[in-house]
Amino acid sequence: MIEKDRLRLALIGCGYFARYHAAAWRVIPQVELVAVCDRAPERAQAFAEQFDVPRYYTNPEALFRAERLDIVDIVTTPESHRELVELAARYGVHVICQKPMALSEADCVAMVESCERAGVSFMVHENFRWQRIFRRARTLTEAIGEPFFLRLWFRSHYDVFARQPYLATAERFIILDLGVHLLDLARFLMRDEFSTLYCITQRVHPQIRGEDVATILLRSRRGAAASIELSYASFAPRELFPQTLALIEGPLGTVLVEADGLLRLITSSGHTEERLAPPSLPWQEPPGEWIQEAVLAIQQHFVDCLRRGLMPETHGRDNLRTMQLVFAAYRSADTTSSIALDQSESERRG
Amino acid sequence: MIEKDRLRLALIGCGYFARYHAAAWRVIPQVELVAVCDRAPERAQAFAEQFDVPRYYTNPEALFRAERLDIVDIVTTPESHRELVELAARYGVHVICQKPMALSEADCVAMVESCERAGVSFMVHENFRWQRIFRRARTLTEAIGEPFFLRLWFRSHYDVFARQPYLATAERFIILDLGVHLLDLARFLMRDEFSTLYCITQRVHPQIRGEDVATILLRSRRGAAASIELSYASFAPRELFPQTLALIEGPLGTVLVEADGLLRLITSSGHTEERLAPPSLPWQEPPGEWIQEAVLAIQQHFVDCLRRGLMPETHGRDNLRTMQLVFAAYRSADTTSSIALDQSESERRG
Repeated sequence: MIEKDRLRLALIGCGYFARYHAAAWRVIPQVELVAVCDRAPERAQAFAEQFDVPRYYTNPEALFRAERLDIVDIVTTPESHRELVELAARYGVHVICQKPMALSEADCVAMVESCERAGVSFMVHENFRWQRIFRRARTLTEAIGEPFFLRLWFRSHYDVFARQPYLATAERFIILDLGVHLLDLARFLMRDEFSTLYCITQRVHPQIRGEDVATILLRSRRGAAASIELSYASFAPRELFPQTLALIEGPLGTVLVEADGLLRLITSSGHTEERLAPPSLPWQEPPGEWIQEAVLAIQQHFVDCLRRGLMPETHGRDNLRTMQLVFAAYRSADTTSSIALDQSESERRG
Repeated sequence: MIEKDRLRLALIGCGYFARYHAAAWRVIPQVELVAVCDRAPERAQAFAEQFDVPRYYTNPEALFRAERLDIVDIVTTPESHRELVELAARYGVHVICQKPMALSEADCVAMVESCERAGVSFMVHENFRWQRIFRRARTLTEAIGEPFFLRLWFRSHYDVFARQPYLATAERFIILDLGVHLLDLARFLMRDEFSTLYCITQRVHPQIRGEDVATILLRSRRGAAASIELSYASFAPRELFPQTLALIEGPLGTVLVEADGLLRLITSSGHTEERLAPPSLPWQEPPGEWIQEAVLAIQQHFVDCLRRGLMPETHGRDNLRTMQLVFAAYRSADTTSSIALDQSESERRG
């Protein structure tokens, strides 16, 4: 439980997506953004100016030495996550870190254990489950009984490489970058963990290095099925990037998450639909409005949990389960066989 | 090659679906329906009267002894398929047999080999691929390059048990009865065979014996993914039974099979859509119009192939591949692991 009025926060990594983090931090009243850090000094400086941040750093260690921080927000590419999270833990600073947690299961486990030993709160910035439409969809599932089937699909032809060119050269791309979101959403919507997984990956864009299409079928512990469809090579009647669509079925009915905030609930007694109002934040930019709103929601959630002494939803050890699914999906695709998930580690501790 | 004017045909099994077979045979000019056979004499007689068939039998052996047949159409439940197909082979009569071919892989292989030894043509009545919309969809896929992804879904809450009560007591239900259609369609639309499969089955209806929900993910030899969704426990915004919907994606575009004959083609150069005219056959009955038309199309195809000395599309050895997928799906669900398909048998021979 943290009782001071305003938490002192720094943000590391001033790249493309960090602007939405910073914009959101600025409107969370319990937080004060005191510093930013980026290896590129001109980028750190410009970012600090843009968001009225008093100080900027180019060296994370220097940042932690100089500032008395309560929270650090890590928005770098995943290669540096472990080092930065462990640094925060050494300085006793609570951490929120962008997904994917890290690039190997060993790194992920080490990060979680470092934070647990240091007694700092560690949350992964798993924002898709904070999209308003998925919060509402989960509430609606209360009317359909225990879900037996979920399909989550993200099929797009958006040129994500133009904005984030490093994605084109990553050895592993769509599952690690985007699939992690849908796998986490699947855990959130099914209210169950998965015990077996089968995955097929493909590279359709000729000029990239990693996979840009993946299809994952998961079996939950109680025997439900979840089909996760990921593609950046799909032509659609209308390009919906970055919207994720969902079909959730239970013995008593169906919940449908459709484009642009449309939600349907179908049960034996009828059919209702509602359309959520689109987000309206001063800094929002198309086409990512629903996500930009989710960034604010998850950051507010982290702060609320810190102040009330609660575990945030996607705390590190919880997110290990999502990351296990990510790594298992690659193993499945590489071996063209299904993977039984060993959850003993997280079970024992979580 | 058969050169006589009209082929003499008998139909065995006068149950619910046989009426659509008989109605279609009657309008195929190269065929003469000379006899029907059913264990229940009153059913055989009533059916013969309804369709103006000169003779009826209650014993298949008696039928074959008494009639000089060119073709027999087997429309019984699958338990009797092997015995009846082998009987036809012994009498040198060409066979068209309802799906599923049989209830075990050993039976299926034996049936195919009996017909090959006897030199009779053997086709499985795999009619879904003869729905007009799927013939057209396959043609449209020529514009999208080699498909990398297919989703075929049949999600319904139709009370299929009311009309075919034996389905409620079958040990294996939805994959064997309906999945066989979608697995065959997947082979047809992907123009490729499958090498690995993972399947999850569920029973949602409490009062039935077999599975009423199944989800199957298949990997094709060239690495494409096909997701097959089957359910008789799904509430939908509108009940579409017995329509199958499809999404087919290639590097150059997408083909969508939507409800009521709507087809879309989306490529980088634009979006076109067409709506196929609904079938209009004198004997058609809702909601199965598209299927009833497909029955006529497949039977006409069989006759055309017989007269021109060609192999029909879903000849027995071809259909062995579909049946291998069916049995592998059950094995996968039972063992909660993926199955590598051994296609050496059909490869060697087919």
